[in-house]
Amino acid sequence: MTDLHALASAVTSGRPRALGQAISLVESHDARAAKLLAEVYPATGRARIIGITGSPGAGKSTLVAALAKHYRAREKRVGIIAVDPTSPFTGGAILGDRIRMTELYTDRGVFIRSMATRGFLGGLAKATNDVVDILDAAGFDVVLVETVGVGQDEVEVVRTVQTNLVVLVPGMGDDIQAIKAGIMEIGDVFVVNKADRPGADKTVTEITMMMSLVEEHGDWVPPIVKTVASRREGIDDLDAAIAKHYDYLAESGELVRRNRDRVRIRIETQLKEGFMARVIGGTIPRDAYESMLDDVLHKRNNPHDAAESVLGRVRF
Amino acid sequence: MTDLHALASAVTSGRPRALGQAISLVESHDARAAKLLAEVYPATGRARIIGITGSPGAGKSTLVAALAKHYRAREKRVGIIAVDPTSPFTGGAILGDRIRMTELYTDRGVFIRSMATRGFLGGLAKATNDVVDILDAAGFDVVLVETVGVGQDEVEVVRTVQTNLVVLVPGMGDDIQAIKAGIMEIGDVFVVNKADRPGADKTVTEITMMMSLVEEHGDWVPPIVKTVASRREGIDDLDAAIAKHYDYLAESGELVRRNRDRVRIRIETQLKEGFMARVIGGTIPRDAYESMLDDVLHKRNNPHDAAESVLGRVRF
Repeated sequence: MTDLHALASAVTSGRPRALGQAISLVESHDARAAKLLAEVYPATGRARIIGITGSPGAGKSTLVAALAKHYRAREKRVGIIAVDPTSPFTGGAILGDRIRMTELYTDRGVFIRSMATRGFLGGLAKATNDVVDILDAAGFDVVLVETVGVGQDEVEVVRTVQTNLVVLVPGMGDDIQAIKAGIMEIGDVFVVNKADRPGADKTVTEITMMMSLVEEHGDWVPPIVKTVASRREGIDDLDAAIAKHYDYLAESGELVRRNRDRVRIRIETQLKEGFMARVIGGTIPRDAYESMLDDVLHKRNNPHDAAESVLGRVRF
Repeated sequence: MTDLHALASAVTSGRPRALGQAISLVESHDARAAKLLAEVYPATGRARIIGITGSPGAGKSTLVAALAKHYRAREKRVGIIAVDPTSPFTGGAILGDRIRMTELYTDRGVFIRSMATRGFLGGLAKATNDVVDILDAAGFDVVLVETVGVGQDEVEVVRTVQTNLVVLVPGMGDDIQAIKAGIMEIGDVFVVNKADRPGADKTVTEITMMMSLVEEHGDWVPPIVKTVASRREGIDDLDAAIAKHYDYLAESGELVRRNRDRVRIRIETQLKEGFMARVIGGTIPRDAYESMLDDVLHKRNNPHDAAESVLGRVRF
């Protein structure tokens, strides 16, 4: 407990080794993680949390690197969380990408962490959230969260950022398919990356058309920004669009609503986890639980009645 | 309750209208759904449950249609569940696809249902599972579950099928990326569809190479089958591969293990849902819960301690 307290202090002082330790604790589902997060929680709430979403091949990581360098040039400390398993940050990289990232890895004002997407069943969004909190508490000004953004759990990750960039590249018909599949609703800013390729303007037009079909944006009309991340072109425009979106969030009350959503998700996750930990192996002994599973497996019982019988032993 | 009993009977007798009603009940999160599922549960466990997974554009729906027709020709009743929002079955279709499906829509031995992937936050796998159960209980011999397969929740859907087909097409570099991203581990059978296109053999080689990097397959080496689904070529081979995989599942004990996993997931989902329903608005009044959220939002409390204070009021 004293140790944990010391670790929490070291985190809020931004010591890199403490950061690594804290994140490992969170990722390993260590029971002490919850207490650590509780301790650092008051120090959170200052970071700008930006999501970068798009298909493999859209150049997300290069864009993340360009944004990171942009913010570093402005004296801001930058945290990078790569949830995308194909990201160079995650090790799914080709050599050229890795070299492009080297500069960031040796910069002490940058902290990079990749999240395995496997092994977090039911909890990727929570784990990502927790790491965002740790970086936030450690005083990082900007936290960039890179994700493929397809699939429900990843959409949940996206829901927890403040501004989400959806990255597309010219001539990717499948991307437009992916947009149909729900990515359209999650874009606060659209980025047409690799905009030096033929068809960039056509892609802009396609996005505009798709956008006119979506009615969920409220008062915010997502801007479309063209970039060539590998040459750091368009990054100033992109930063301006991100800043404008933040003003919108703050003025419209949407920021408070999103933050409140995050709080709700976290408390409920904690409630469910705490409940399961107390019930299985507590209220119902573990072997009794396993034989209950067998009963359901062999049709002597059904999942509903089995669960109800356990819930019946708890006094609410 | 009597009504529900009648509906359950109608479902297990396979009446199409009852099926539609039952599935609507499940999808609308109606409280009676759990009871209905409990009633039909003893009638489940006979259907062959096959997943069809792949990117938009891989021709999954056409393959599903070809498989459905194959099984229909063998007098089997076929259920189709489309979890993919870009599937023609879901309405995200181009006209040509729709026409190809018409034959199925007018066949009374086929039941087609698409699942919206939005609005099931945290529950897509459960909802899909429930619909599989209803179709299974209604006596469908084969249930085909079509999904994009990317993202955590969709992977969870895939985990609940017995045999999962991963569908690829020649010359899709991104697909190989997607494989790296975790799809490789979830393939029981690989299908190279549109195999009349150039590069089909190269894709087979690529899959073989990728597969050699994965060690999770145990004793089963996933076969690779070439198909041209639009011309129904290769479907016999595919069916043979699926049948062989089933034999493996049954003989190795893997089938029981997978079924037991499914049971575990369902009981735990039910437990968590039942818990939350009793706690919020029960143990803690709804307005007290909301002001607890506000306390956390404004840093007067943290998510961990907030959740613990609620759990402290429950007697386990």
